[in-house]
Parts: sequence; structure tokens; C-alpha cells
Amino acid sequence: MSLVVVGSVAYDGVETPHGKVDRMLGGACTYISLAASYFTPVKIVAIVGDDFDQQDYDLLASRGIDLSGLERVPGKTFFWAGVYSEDMNDRTTLQTDLNVFAGFNPKLPEHYRTQPYVLLGNIQPALQHSVKQQMKGAKFLGGDTMNFWINDFRSELLDTIRHWDFLLINDSEARLLSGVNHLGRAAEKIMEMGPKTLIIKRGEYGAMLFHPNGYFSVPGYLLDEVQDPTGAGDCFAGGFTGYLAEQGVDPSNGPIDQRLLGRAVVYGSVMGSFCCERFGVDRFRSLTREDIEKRFEEFRNFTSF
Amino acid sequence: MSLVVVGSVAYDGVETPHGKVDRMLGGACTYISLAASYFTPVKIVAIVGDDFDQQDYDLLASRGIDLSGLERVPGKTFFWAGVYSEDMNDRTTLQTDLNVFAGFNPKLPEHYRTQPYVLLGNIQPALQHSVKQQMKGAKFLGGDTMNFWINDFRSELLDTIRHWDFLLINDSEARLLSGVNHLGRAAEKIMEMGPKTLIIKRGEYGAMLFHPNGYFSVPGYLLDEVQDPTGAGDCFAGGFTGYLAEQGVDPSNGPIDQRLLGRAVVYGSVMGSFCCERFGVDRFRSLTREDIEKRFEEFRNFTSF
Repeated sequence: MSLVVVGSVAYDGVETPHGKVDRMLGGACTYISLAASYFTPVKIVAIVGDDFDQQDYDLLASRGIDLSGLERVPGKTFFWAGVYSEDMNDRTTLQTDLNVFAGFNPKLPEHYRTQPYVLLGNIQPALQHSVKQQMKGAKFLGGDTMNFWINDFRSELLDTIRHWDFLLINDSEARLLSGVNHLGRAAEKIMEMGPKTLIIKRGEYGAMLFHPNGYFSVPGYLLDEVQDPTGAGDCFAGGFTGYLAEQGVDPSNGPIDQRLLGRAVVYGSVMGSFCCERFGVDRFRSLTREDIEKRFEEFRNFTSF
Repeated sequence: MSLVVVGSVAYDGVETPHGKVDRMLGGACTYISLAASYFTPVKIVAIVGDDFDQQDYDLLASRGIDLSGLERVPGKTFFWAGVYSEDMNDRTTLQTDLNVFAGFNPKLPEHYRTQPYVLLGNIQPALQHSVKQQMKGAKFLGGDTMNFWINDFRSELLDTIRHWDFLLINDSEARLLSGVNHLGRAAEKIMEMGPKTLIIKRGEYGAMLFHPNGYFSVPGYLLDEVQDPTGAGDCFAGGFTGYLAEQGVDPSNGPIDQRLLGRAVVYGSVMGSFCCERFGVDRFRSLTREDIEKRFEEFRNFTSF
């Protein structure tokens, strides 16, 4: 019983006030699958070029991630470069070379199609939809999107998320998608569009989860130092969905318990916080489930009253 | 066993996207004492002019607030007017007439001086200090300050808060006071200045509390509608301190339990949230302790995992 993750595997160049790395493993699918792999078996669907390093395959494989859906084609792997502001709340994209990613058309290996859990990284809505159509038996399927798709591919996006169980976005995206400023009413409007579980990420301020019977909110973790926030939102998504997959959620059996959803949001927050501690995916080279549980208990401690 | 509250009693003119009131009861001492009065007996120290309305006395008296320290002198009561931005995250001051408040020199009635709890609203640090000196036996004393005193009266402020048990400020003030951007390290630096309990208010994002052994964090309450945010921070302070007074905290007996401090932060958040629901102090005309407990339970529900 695995989680299928679809999205970009990339190389990133990142500069933050704490340093600069010209080329390192990145991409939404990479971050999501590494984070989720601590909770549940993961199978990825992505595309890379013939420049993709063996050591990066090895890192993913070392976390038990099924790479049979990782297509390798002639050409270069997707490359993105960006620089963060002094407080790291803003970033400027310096370079986006889609390369082989421009031709990405997710084809799921046969043994993926019967899996119950699916997380669709931030890619073109029509591609996300094509994955949904290949996985008709999925119990719990959803994903991420971004401003670009909300603004310029709105009807395609609406046709896609109509069939989703959950949607993960940030607060400005929630306001943009719903056209409503008040987060609670924005959430109601978005749930009417399809996803009955809506997670709104708020960066350093934490995250909220909305469902038809209420909401859950958790403040952010106070990290000693944020080295590089790239991938934090994807790691949140991986922790959130990975934990729910581990717990075997099945919305067809009735509404998911709010406490369980709350714990998933906290595991998402935990994974996002670890991601920021090192550049790129470096934190996942040493992170253990024990570290994760320890931080989860920290969350319990600083939020209990 | 009462809470002594010192600060401004004023008339306010407020405009928000939800309406405009030219003149209504306001002032930090007013908001603090109304909020605290739901938890503990309150005695106020403030000054008003001969234009102060009987119905405003009556409102305070109806909450059992001891007004023997409310000095009435010839002249006009402090007047402030401001207008809020569309999203109500910013406000512009249109008018500040100190009037009789310019001559405020807090003189505590004899029966105030033996009270254990003191909350000093945002006034000149030297005046706050003069109150501290009149109340040498206080068990738990602290207060609020603002950018103006941090920037222009820094040494006076440092001499004052050195003797405080707690300090309530917002996140930008914490960064300004400490000179440190990272909230956790800012908090450490501020605790070294004196107050061993530091509450950092974060508006819609909630609040954090730091103490020498850790921290507590609670997200904000999702209000259906914010009519007027004026006084929300003061109501937070009143709820926080009022609850701790009700519980009889005494730091001389050892560190205050973090769960108790956390509950105080939540009661503060509850009172701040009610304040925003109506213009000025209007919500306190009908609010009951039962309403407060109900919202406290809502906080428990949306933060539990």
C-alpha cells in the first residue's frame, strides 16, 4: 500500500543569506517523496535527463523509493535557480530551464495504478488530471498548485481539483483561488470546488486545515536557523500525506477524524521544519524517524495548555 | 486580592471598513480593565477630564471595577482618532489630543498599594516605574510598551522593565527592543533585560510566550468578522493577567507552570478576539464568562491533535 508521488525532479541553484549552492538535487517530487518515505512506501513518477547523477538515484533508492516511474530521456534535467531575500520571506527566480520536463507526460507503471494514495506535485493541471484518470481506484488523492495555474489555467485547474480529496496551498493562493480575503470563507468556497480537506500553509506562522465540520490550526516551529527554505512546502505535503497513508485513511468510510488530520498537519510541519535546516535535501541524508517523533513531541509540548 | 491597572482612559474616533464612530470610550486602561474584570477584581489608576460621561463610569462600575484611582480634573479627556486600512492590518493616526492625560502622574490610593497584581498599560516608562515604586509588595507586575518608548526613551524603558515580571509586546517591538530578528533569540535577549515571562503578540497569527525553560505558541482565532481591532492587544493583556491573578500565581514560589501560562495566553487571545467583534468596548456590554469559556473550549478543539 504505497503513496504515488508525481512532480518535478530537478537541479536547483539556490542562494540564501547563509550560502550559495550552484547545483543540487531538488524538485517538488524529490522533496515530497523523501519526506513521505519516513511514513509509507513511496513510488514516484517524474522525468530526468541523461545528466541525472547516480548519487541522486542512490539517495532516493536508499529511502526505499520505487523509481520504476522515473523516466530517463536524452537531454538535460529541469534546472531552476533563485535567490532569497535577507529575511527569506521572498525569493526571486533567476533561471528556469524546463529542459526534458517540458515533455513530461506522466505514464504510470502498471503496478502503480492500484495504489490507494496519490500526491500530485505542482505541475500543469491537465497532467495532474491525466494521473487521476490512470488511478481510478485511489482512496485519497490530492495535491498542490500555484498562482500561475490559478491565474492562467483556471478552468483547467477547476476541472482537475473537482475530483480531488485534498488540496494543499498557501494563504495567498487560497485567497486568489477563492476570490475571498477571509480565510475561513475562502476555505468554504474552495471546499465547494471539490477537495473536502483543505490545507493552508502559512510559512513561519504555521498551517491550518479545513474540513466540512471544522478546522485545525497549528503555529510554526521556531527553528534555530533557516538555512534554505526551498522545498519546505513540499516536505510539508510529503509528511502530511505520508502520515495519513501510514494510518490507512479511507474517506469512503466516512469523515476523517479531526485529531488524525491535526496530527498529519503537525507531521507536515515537522518535515517542513527539518527541510529548512540544511541546503536542498541535505537534512534527509541523516534524518531518522526518531528525530521526527522527537520534534512531534516538541510540537505537543509548546502547543499544550 | 485585586489586579491594579494603570493607563489611559480616553475617547476614540475610529473608522474601519465596517463603519465609523466619532467618539466612544477607549484607552488602554479601559480595555485592559474590562477584559480582566471577567477573571479578577480590578482597581484602575487613570485620569479623565470633566467631559467624562456618567454612562462610561457606569459601564466600568457595572463590571465591579474599583474607580477610586480614576482622577477627574478640569479639562478634556484624552482623545485619539485613527483610520484602519482595508485589511485592517495597518492604521493611520488622524488626531492625538493628550488633554488632561499630559499631566497624568499616577497616585495610588492607599488600599491599592498592598495588591499583588499590577498591569502597567502603555504609558511613559518613568510613570510606569513610579507605580512600581508605590507597590513594593507586588507579586506579579509587568506591562506593555511601544515603538515610541523603545526608540526615544530606551534607557528609561530599560531601567523600568528591569524590575518587571512580565512584558507584553508585539513581534516588531520585540525585534526593535532586542535588535535581533530571530524571535527566539530576541526573546532570550529581552528576558536578560528583566522580565522572565515575555508575551509576543502576533495579531491574526496568534501569540507566543517565552519563559526561561521554554516557550508556548497558540495560533489566532478565526473570527467571522473583525469590526474594529482597536484595543485587542489591551484586551489580550487584561485576559492574560486577569486569569493569572484569578489563579493566584506567585513567581516567588518558583517558576510558573507552562500549562498555566499557556492557558493565560489562550484566555488573552479569547478576550482579544471578542474585542474585535464590535466597535470600541461594545462587546463587553453583553459578554459573559460563559461566552469566554465556550470560546476557550473552541481554542482547545481547533488546536488539539
